[in-house]
Amino acid sequence: MDSVPGRIVISVDAMGGDRGAAAVAAGIIRSAAKNPDIAFIVHGPEPELSRLLGRRRELQGRCEIRHAEGVVKMSDKPSQVMRHGEGTSMWSTVESVKRGEATVAVSCGNTGALMALSMIRLRKLPGVNRPAIACLWPSRNPQGFNVMLDVGADIKADAEDLLQYALMGASYARNGLGLARPRVGLLNVGTEEHKGRAELKVAHDLIAAATEAGAFDYVGFVEGGDLPSDRVDVIVTDGFTGNIALKTGEGTAKLISDFLKEAFNATFLSKIAALLALTSLKRLQKRIDPRRVNGGVFLGLNGTVVKSHGSADALGVSAAIKLAFRLAQSGFQDRLAARVASAGQARQDAAVQGTGPAVGSPGGTS
Amino acid sequence: MDSVPGRIVISVDAMGGDRGAAAVAAGIIRSAAKNPDIAFIVHGPEPELSRLLGRRRELQGRCEIRHAEGVVKMSDKPSQVMRHGEGTSMWSTVESVKRGEATVAVSCGNTGALMALSMIRLRKLPGVNRPAIACLWPSRNPQGFNVMLDVGADIKADAEDLLQYALMGASYARNGLGLARPRVGLLNVGTEEHKGRAELKVAHDLIAAATEAGAFDYVGFVEGGDLPSDRVDVIVTDGFTGNIALKTGEGTAKLISDFLKEAFNATFLSKIAALLALTSLKRLQKRIDPRRVNGGVFLGLNGTVVKSHGSADALGVSAAIKLAFRLAQSGFQDRLAARVASAGQARQDAAVQGTGPAVGSPGGTS
Repeated sequence: MDSVPGRIVISVDAMGGDRGAAAVAAGIIRSAAKNPDIAFIVHGPEPELSRLLGRRRELQGRCEIRHAEGVVKMSDKPSQVMRHGEGTSMWSTVESVKRGEATVAVSCGNTGALMALSMIRLRKLPGVNRPAIACLWPSRNPQGFNVMLDVGADIKADAEDLLQYALMGASYARNGLGLARPRVGLLNVGTEEHKGRAELKVAHDLIAAATEAGAFDYVGFVEGGDLPSDRVDVIVTDGFTGNIALKTGEGTAKLISDFLKEAFNATFLSKIAALLALTSLKRLQKRIDPRRVNGGVFLGLNGTVVKSHGSADALGVSAAIKLAFRLAQSGFQDRLAARVASAGQARQDAAVQGTGPAVGSPGGTS
Repeated sequence: MDSVPGRIVISVDAMGGDRGAAAVAAGIIRSAAKNPDIAFIVHGPEPELSRLLGRRRELQGRCEIRHAEGVVKMSDKPSQVMRHGEGTSMWSTVESVKRGEATVAVSCGNTGALMALSMIRLRKLPGVNRPAIACLWPSRNPQGFNVMLDVGADIKADAEDLLQYALMGASYARNGLGLARPRVGLLNVGTEEHKGRAELKVAHDLIAAATEAGAFDYVGFVEGGDLPSDRVDVIVTDGFTGNIALKTGEGTAKLISDFLKEAFNATFLSKIAALLALTSLKRLQKRIDPRRVNGGVFLGLNGTVVKSHGSADALGVSAAIKLAFRLAQSGFQDRLAARVASAGQARQDAAVQGTGPAVGSPGGTS
């Protein structure tokens, strides 16, 4: 692979997705054609990958194939993959980030296994107890998306974890969505301060006290209906609730989309109407197309990992690669680490001095 | 009020909704015009209610106004309403069910306060630890809706509570939706048996052992994406998760509906298309219109209470009254109580004899 200044290397797992290596290869080719500043290390069985990627002109000099025989299946248990995963394409993909050959890893494979491998190979960032998966959510905001985390890295989160999610989510929104001072909300069953579980009330106070260290605004509790709203940019919750909310939202969107298709197929007149409205309907579809917001980001590790949807096609894979590139280019990993460290420092100082949260601690853009 | 055989009396709180007494009165009149077998006891300030309802021909001889001066506001804390709520229309509405004057209570007011008042006035059913709120969810099933509970009565639920939700939800689906043997699923972050929180694994086993006593089928764990699916009829979860899922689903539907309107308003051509597609779009709207599935039902008390959406208009209020009528007519309250008692008995027998869950315990239609 040629070394070119300004070029960013992404490590891609070709295997483990529902559509196999062909869809991942098509996504890589699509990204390469659009963006001359990305190079790839692609992991999987060499003969198959050579056939799919070897002779593509777009990839000349910027795609290295790294042979890996094994494949992590969707049904594999994370604990087994942790013990016996060496030699799989997923392991190899994460390893490239650990060794510093690539800046960000991308995989369409088994989420639990990818998180487990990422945890043991990349290790947690100093000061982070539970890493999180952040996803993007179509919203009414000008940037088009809100960030929600955790959507499934861990089924539990205590108040301190939720504070770290706020810091990490704000940093992600700043670097991934270009928001200078993101607005953070804490997901609850009501917006009144007396509502919800005990750990949420503690987290509420912790997050409110960390707005300076984390360079975000805190809007307080938000509800399920606020996930797509324009009064918040980052929604913080535990991984159990976040995962249920994410899948409920996707399921509802799918239901309405199916009902809409049925409605337009109901009569002759409605079929003509659908033809006339095609452009508008496509615009709608584009706004809520899950493939365009493809990529859960693992936060809180020594290295960034993007988890693409298992069923991603070329467009979906290319969206995940684009997200990985944008995060790498912004120096996100170092900024996030600095932010978590400085917030931890601010809390320690406050605890030692007994003066409450530090005000005026390092701001900047991390 | 005339006493007519076969007539069912519904107790309606005229106050506390976002649209005031006028919307509730319009809903009552709508229901009365459609169904000659309902009578009403309506609670609120007598002068206002007399003006709204007094001279309506549809209501002659089947509407009694019960004067109550006080109104529970949306911002009132449940604990305050419990202590000082006597004299409010909400208190009076529940009281009519307690005294046996009416079979089911309907209110558009403050959910937390309504649950608190219902708990202290009606008391919990023997064998029920935590009452639950069940809602209907648009689905791909022939009946058009799935049942989900708890959606916010309590933020916690242990394994025993989840078992009771399964029994109560199945009974509701049988009597409210006419399903002889409902399929019950337990909401989790994955369908594999090793996934999720500890109390969910225990609940999984308890529910699987109660299918005979509860006369339902158990499909195991389901995910957020299954809420509208046709592989399950009743979804069991704790009130925190259920409330987040419910509001996330509503918020997503609202977002798509707004985007759809924008898409059809985008160009001249798309406006013509919208006109042509009007009938189809209305059919779609009808299928997912939250007003038509209006009414959370409080389960596990000595009496049935239907909580209508706070923003319900005449159509919404009338849907809630229709649901209350259907439940009253089916003898739901007694059937539910019998089902919970017999399941408790079966578990006790099994525990005493050490023979596992009783098979062949009373079936029937409760």
